[in-house]
Amino acid sequence: MNEIEFRRAQASDLPAIVALLADDPLGAAREDSSMPLARGYTDAFNAIDADANQLLAVAVDGADVIGTLQISFLAGISRKGGWRGQIEAVRVASGRRSDGIGKKMFEWAVEQCRSRGCGVVQLTTDKGRADAHRFYEGLGFAASHIGYKKTL
Amino acid sequence: MNEIEFRRAQASDLPAIVALLADDPLGAAREDSSMPLARGYTDAFNAIDADANQLLAVAVDGADVIGTLQISFLAGISRKGGWRGQIEAVRVASGRRSDGIGKKMFEWAVEQCRSRGCGVVQLTTDKGRADAHRFYEGLGFAASHIGYKKTL
Repeated sequence: MNEIEFRRAQASDLPAIVALLADDPLGAAREDSSMPLARGYTDAFNAIDADANQLLAVAVDGADVIGTLQISFLAGISRKGGWRGQIEAVRVASGRRSDGIGKKMFEWAVEQCRSRGCGVVQLTTDKGRADAHRFYEGLGFAASHIGYKKTL
Repeated sequence: MNEIEFRRAQASDLPAIVALLADDPLGAAREDSSMPLARGYTDAFNAIDADANQLLAVAVDGADVIGTLQISFLAGISRKGGWRGQIEAVRVASGRRSDGIGKKMFEWAVEQCRSRGCGVVQLTTDKGRADAHRFYEGLGFAASHIGYKKTL
């Protein structure tokens, strides 16, 4: 195994990121990794890339994108105006999940939040993802909240 | 009761917003509504106000700020690049909670998300806020996720 690198995603990483999101029991029904990529994906990439408070990241092993997550740095009035780091869309390539890459990627992400002055890191995960719950609890996250969603 | 107005918060609303956040069982331990406001609050207000993807809102009855919430409009790659609206820091003045203001404020907030093209509205709430759970479920939100937090 080469040294894994974690870095900001480039436009050329986008097909691999979409493929990672699609290779997932929940994502399979929601995503479309066929090429050329649907316009929504490239528009979203451009919006994220242009926003200093958004960081779409990849884990790279040589030429291969093997993981991804997105961090949103969020200013808020509560907690005395404290910034929060929010992590979403976390995926590790299905063949690489026993390598500790998810843990390293998350530690890197938490460090990005710390370096931006965030006092809290937050995320939500689907109630059905039992493996993810164990993963986050092992990293010191507390399951203190309920996450609600409403589709428009 | 006058007509309640919902609008983007102005700097002059900030002391009332902080007072609403502090007037809460969880917020009381986290906030400081003494004047002049702590620098963190004004810095956060300025960061939010300068960001086109953040909307700090107030509900106003005449000269009184009687409610607040914050919407973050978040671009993401998942769900085919769909935007999400995230609602945080929701409060209604303690003396006004039986007037249906929370419901009207939330309907207004969901409409802001819809007008920005969001496919999903999401929020988290502390597991201990049973009244809030009933409120969100009554508005058609599904408790599909677990919300994790880690303090840095």
